[in-house]
Amino acid sequence: MITGNTRIFFMLADPIHHVRTPEVLNPLFRARGIDAVMVPVHYAPADFAAAWQAMKRMRNLGGMVVSVPLKEQALELADRVGAEAQELGAANTVRREADGTMVAENFDGRGFLQGLLGGGADAQGREALLLGAGGAGRAIAFGLARSGVASLRVHDPDAARAQSLADRIAAGYPQLRVSAGPNDLDGVDLLVNASPCGLHPETDPAPVDLSRLRPEILVADIIMKPRETPLLRAAQDKGCQVRHGAPMLDCQLELMLEFFGL
Amino acid sequence: MITGNTRIFFMLADPIHHVRTPEVLNPLFRARGIDAVMVPVHYAPADFAAAWQAMKRMRNLGGMVVSVPLKEQALELADRVGAEAQELGAANTVRREADGTMVAENFDGRGFLQGLLGGGADAQGREALLLGAGGAGRAIAFGLARSGVASLRVHDPDAARAQSLADRIAAGYPQLRVSAGPNDLDGVDLLVNASPCGLHPETDPAPVDLSRLRPEILVADIIMKPRETPLLRAAQDKGCQVRHGAPMLDCQLELMLEFFGL
Repeated sequence: MITGNTRIFFMLADPIHHVRTPEVLNPLFRARGIDAVMVPVHYAPADFAAAWQAMKRMRNLGGMVVSVPLKEQALELADRVGAEAQELGAANTVRREADGTMVAENFDGRGFLQGLLGGGADAQGREALLLGAGGAGRAIAFGLARSGVASLRVHDPDAARAQSLADRIAAGYPQLRVSAGPNDLDGVDLLVNASPCGLHPETDPAPVDLSRLRPEILVADIIMKPRETPLLRAAQDKGCQVRHGAPMLDCQLELMLEFFGL
Repeated sequence: MITGNTRIFFMLADPIHHVRTPEVLNPLFRARGIDAVMVPVHYAPADFAAAWQAMKRMRNLGGMVVSVPLKEQALELADRVGAEAQELGAANTVRREADGTMVAENFDGRGFLQGLLGGGADAQGREALLLGAGGAGRAIAFGLARSGVASLRVHDPDAARAQSLADRIAAGYPQLRVSAGPNDLDGVDLLVNASPCGLHPETDPAPVDLSRLRPEILVADIIMKPRETPLLRAAQDKGCQVRHGAPMLDCQLELMLEFFGL
């Protein structure tokens, strides 16, 4: 029941119709007896800075979750920024403190590591191949670098995007062997799919040559729907350990709730 | 279930904790299968103008209900204003159109007339005494004037406030006998309590001399809690027709929904 005492949280994106976080978070609030509600709020990028100034002053606003294409602006507008948001150049979670101070962080990478790779432990010492250098791929790349992989190769159909991400990782983690390169599985023992390949199993090409999978490769796919992507199914058939995408969101939600102080 | 397609409505007030409209409206949305939600939003008066500019640009905002002390500002900020809001100098409902145009109206008076006085028919030709010249009293005074009472006397412990309201009514309705004066029941056959007397039945004084009630007086009390105020109880004991406050809110909600296009 939403009352005058309910703490309000916004979910921002443009467009807004596809956002799922309110559908997941509101039942969680209810189940835990937290008097809070998350509502989707639609601002175009050009209106976001003015909206931000209003949200700073909205006294019963607890914070917000920020999605595409507003994450970079959220980082710029915030009064304080966490280390991971700073590193990524993008924030996905903002806490509003009682005096209007806006504190931004990004839990994409940590959500992935906690949900899929045992907090990072499962990645330590691995030779990692990351498929996809988009928003999620970037967060995961930094997460893998932090978690102590032995090496990281980034692959993206847009080679320049892969190279740019590899360069940024190399600058932040000079001790790590990092490169942009092909989606070739030789020498790899950790494969992470952060590309959209597999969202449409009937028509998407495989993100790697599935016949080259070997049992010692740990295979993680961040795609949540379908739960069993062709990549994960092929990996299981080869005897690989596999990790499904759904826990990434669950872990992110827990990290966000903790950050909000809920 | 709040999703990315849900139409968002705000309830604005300062303070916010006491607002009840979301508690009434959200179950109504659910019961009618309307994909909308109303959330309380807390801005101080000094921040309201900036917040308004942001709300104009919030693309999934359907509108807002505005309460004390923001009703006058809402009127000033609106792009278009309905006749009753204009007359009252205050808006309590704002519709946001798809292009960001903000249209304001005030349903306090019409809600009262529809809920308590048969759309105004029960007031026609009556000699009315109105107790209370605050926000609700002002809306009701204009409503009574519009509905064709024979005369209207306004009483308020603050005599200047009563006089100021009587003057405004007189200016708008020159054919009506209107005055500010005592809370004396002689010659009165419609008594409306729009004062807070009765909210705390144990300690509040009676708003009129209850021993002077006569059976021909129609007695309406806008207080909703308690449902049976001492005034209404005494009136029933005398054989008066009485009207309880709750339908005023129900009727206002229906008027607001219609105005929002829901």
